[in-house]
Amino acid sequence: MKPIRIIFTLLAIAIASITTTYAQDQLPSWNDGATKKSITDFIAKVTKEGSADFVPPAERIATFDNDGTLWCEQPLYFQLLFALDRVKALAPQHPEWKTKEPFASLLRGDVKGALAGGEHAMLEIIIVTHAGMTTAEFEKIVADWIETAKHPKFKRPYTECVYQPMIELLAYLRANGFKTFIVSGGGIEFMRPWTEKVYGIPPEQVVGSSIKTKYETRDSKPVLVRLPEMNFIDDKAGKPVGINEHIGRRPIAAFGNSTGDQQMLEWTQAGSGVRLMMLVHHDDAAREFAYGAESKIGTFSDALMVEAKKNDWTVISMKDDWKTIFAFASQAAP
Amino acid sequence: MKPIRIIFTLLAIAIASITTTYAQDQLPSWNDGATKKSITDFIAKVTKEGSADFVPPAERIATFDNDGTLWCEQPLYFQLLFALDRVKALAPQHPEWKTKEPFASLLRGDVKGALAGGEHAMLEIIIVTHAGMTTAEFEKIVADWIETAKHPKFKRPYTECVYQPMIELLAYLRANGFKTFIVSGGGIEFMRPWTEKVYGIPPEQVVGSSIKTKYETRDSKPVLVRLPEMNFIDDKAGKPVGINEHIGRRPIAAFGNSTGDQQMLEWTQAGSGVRLMMLVHHDDAAREFAYGAESKIGTFSDALMVEAKKNDWTVISMKDDWKTIFAFASQAAP
Repeated sequence: MKPIRIIFTLLAIAIASITTTYAQDQLPSWNDGATKKSITDFIAKVTKEGSADFVPPAERIATFDNDGTLWCEQPLYFQLLFALDRVKALAPQHPEWKTKEPFASLLRGDVKGALAGGEHAMLEIIIVTHAGMTTAEFEKIVADWIETAKHPKFKRPYTECVYQPMIELLAYLRANGFKTFIVSGGGIEFMRPWTEKVYGIPPEQVVGSSIKTKYETRDSKPVLVRLPEMNFIDDKAGKPVGINEHIGRRPIAAFGNSTGDQQMLEWTQAGSGVRLMMLVHHDDAAREFAYGAESKIGTFSDALMVEAKKNDWTVISMKDDWKTIFAFASQAAP
Repeated sequence: MKPIRIIFTLLAIAIASITTTYAQDQLPSWNDGATKKSITDFIAKVTKEGSADFVPPAERIATFDNDGTLWCEQPLYFQLLFALDRVKALAPQHPEWKTKEPFASLLRGDVKGALAGGEHAMLEIIIVTHAGMTTAEFEKIVADWIETAKHPKFKRPYTECVYQPMIELLAYLRANGFKTFIVSGGGIEFMRPWTEKVYGIPPEQVVGSSIKTKYETRDSKPVLVRLPEMNFIDDKAGKPVGINEHIGRRPIAAFGNSTGDQQMLEWTQAGSGVRLMMLVHHDDAAREFAYGAESKIGTFSDALMVEAKKNDWTVISMKDDWKTIFAFASQAAP
């Protein structure tokens, strides 16, 4: 064979292998059907060069809520379970908690009683467990907890209680030139220590709620100290604000699961061109949890369902659309 | 030739061309010397796989101040010149400004008189020119101004008054796997409309000062309205706070030019491993401006110079280290 023929042969092999890769199902944990098709159709449209729907890679921004969208949020938000574990760990240094609410109830194991104090009680728990230390110290506390703590129902590390179909979706979007961001009501510094490993999302692509920090010198080293004061709440109408502040560009795809995500989806849809808005619906009591309008955690109100239908947002049924929910349970899937 | 020989020949050609590319000077506007060498040595170290100094690409974060570091900041911060132009443009809608300071002085062309009111006067000018509209409207105002306005000394668009050696440095860092961020005291939404085109830095990699925004519905469309209230000042001790909030990872290289950048450089240096901290010194009155400790804009105090020497930060002499300052003046460079 002449050199030029060899080059063409090599090229042909390369092209064939690329074609094979693309022909493979990138979303194997999604059942075939309208929901999965809404994703693959969207990707096909925005990546088709020369078409009216084409979106340049720099503008392919996708935002994901975290709790209930990428990982589980029952029986309580995992960050709240973290805070409760921290209260127990810190109790020996706080003898006064034995008689002080909400700590007294918590330490007796009465979570419901502790949370009966409402937002004020929650805030007190968050402050004592999330502030007062440096950012580096907090990062280590979170990393240690996430390494060792286990989900009460699944008996697995929390980072394994992530939805396999969404992990595939994140990878599929990135393979198609998207930048994937988390936009969560959860604490930004609670997520960053593990999102890169678990979701492939680096710290700079995590948007979340935050408390204020202060730059100061400790032991002649500069540190950032976490203050007992809210900085930003990245929920509901805060999500478009957080997206604008951190990303500065409107997403073309957004994924959520509760009323806290409505404004993010509205904001995403209000841009021009093709858009994809999806809501995960927790309707699978057998494999995960079933909850919706009545749940305080991850509320999927009837009004949100009306809004979704009106705006053509895709509602993902975990029961019907997901072949597998958790990677650890893939053998047990129907 | 046998196919296998052909493949090796092709590979050899490919490797040779790669080597040639790397042998080319990536920083042609920098004069050879210790300053340039501090950059190339740093890059060689952190990218050398298997070495103790190696930094994985995900952690190669470089942060750049903007005013006086990437683009010019004299005779006034460009954002302030933008605000002054906006006051003139808005004056017909504000007849009361004719007798109200700082607007009255400004409209008579007496900038010094207007700014005599100090921070309060500045804030009043910023508020009337930067708040009250939607983020989309503000983006358009900035984009239109940046397209048409010209620098009073160089008679060029402001986006041409950028330092060619720094443009090369940004590209050189990115070619070596770095993510480049702006961390500026300037307004985040004043920079984002043009940083991608001018610096190759996308909006999500711009950190800056900001005012608060509010999500609301106007003409049945969701918008973000810019409020007359400061949200964050990304200067001095605010820079490490902003870096932590937006990037969530400590930079390994940081570039500034004034006392406002000291904490960013300290924060960068306080991490483990090899680090690069640099300060641009404006000492070239002939080709740009010469200013330092005495200047209110871009103050390079004597204390900062002491700090730089003590901490081994590289001070860039625009006069001695830069062959070319502006691309438009490359013919005229000595």
